[in-house]
Amino acid sequence: MTLPMPELPPAIRPAAEADVPDLIRLIKELADYEREPDAVKITAEQLERLLFGPDPRVFALVAEHEQRVAGMAIYFLNFSTWEGKLGIYLEDLYVSPETRGTGLGKALLQSLAAIAVARDYARFEWAVLDWNQPALDFYRGLGAVPLEEWTVHRLHGDALAQIAKPYA
Amino acid sequence: MTLPMPELPPAIRPAAEADVPDLIRLIKELADYEREPDAVKITAEQLERLLFGPDPRVFALVAEHEQRVAGMAIYFLNFSTWEGKLGIYLEDLYVSPETRGTGLGKALLQSLAAIAVARDYARFEWAVLDWNQPALDFYRGLGAVPLEEWTVHRLHGDALAQIAKPYA
Repeated sequence: MTLPMPELPPAIRPAAEADVPDLIRLIKELADYEREPDAVKITAEQLERLLFGPDPRVFALVAEHEQRVAGMAIYFLNFSTWEGKLGIYLEDLYVSPETRGTGLGKALLQSLAAIAVARDYARFEWAVLDWNQPALDFYRGLGAVPLEEWTVHRLHGDALAQIAKPYA
Repeated sequence: MTLPMPELPPAIRPAAEADVPDLIRLIKELADYEREPDAVKITAEQLERLLFGPDPRVFALVAEHEQRVAGMAIYFLNFSTWEGKLGIYLEDLYVSPETRGTGLGKALLQSLAAIAVARDYARFEWAVLDWNQPALDFYRGLGAVPLEEWTVHRLHGDALAQIAKPYA
């Protein structure tokens, strides 16, 4: 089922298969920026299958600057039980340092907001690091509400395997 | 595309269309418990379409006690960019008060962990209220790691419409 896509800002478009190498490059740039270069295990083949295989669960927008892919937003769909509506969860937003200040980051956020509104989604969410004050200021200036009472908990690796053990 | 389902604990099974009225009942019970009875807007028709329509993005397990649906887990799929793998995000976990202590909550968590392991997902996540100490203790006892540095930010309603405005 193809999900509807509204008109987007001029620099922004949904990622195409040909963008996978650029997306991998930007994912690695982001990990370097966050000083976790070794954390990137995703391969071009995995990303291509996730974004463009049957029944995709992951989506990407790219931002172009001077005919080059200089930014990206990777997102998936979440859900509000009480509203009975889907939503957008922005997993990664990244714009190359050399094109910061040109508005690509805001255009990516506007695009995701436009997708949410066009599809009658309940919400648009993303996580922010508590010490990233410029990001917190920017997002709260846009009207984003911090869900301060909630902490996400994660099971992975050995702890996940241990709990699954009787059944997996 | 049908997603593979491992063997589950005896009391747990994927929700079927016939469970929708019970799921709506449990969603309302949960909202009452959280003292937000008026927050529930979802209808049986919406839930049925989301869970069982074409290309579902939302999934549910039910827990049975004495042939009655007494618990539920509503989840969707999230994504780890660095791992290049999908994951499970548990949106709502609820067990009716009269069957608490019978292990249904843990069996639902074990089931989601087993699904994650069987599908080679990266992680299994959910959000916990910071003041819910019994829940925090229980989840951390299972090995769940709190993502304490991150705060989810949400755009919805007027703020979302405002940002989307030039394009939606």
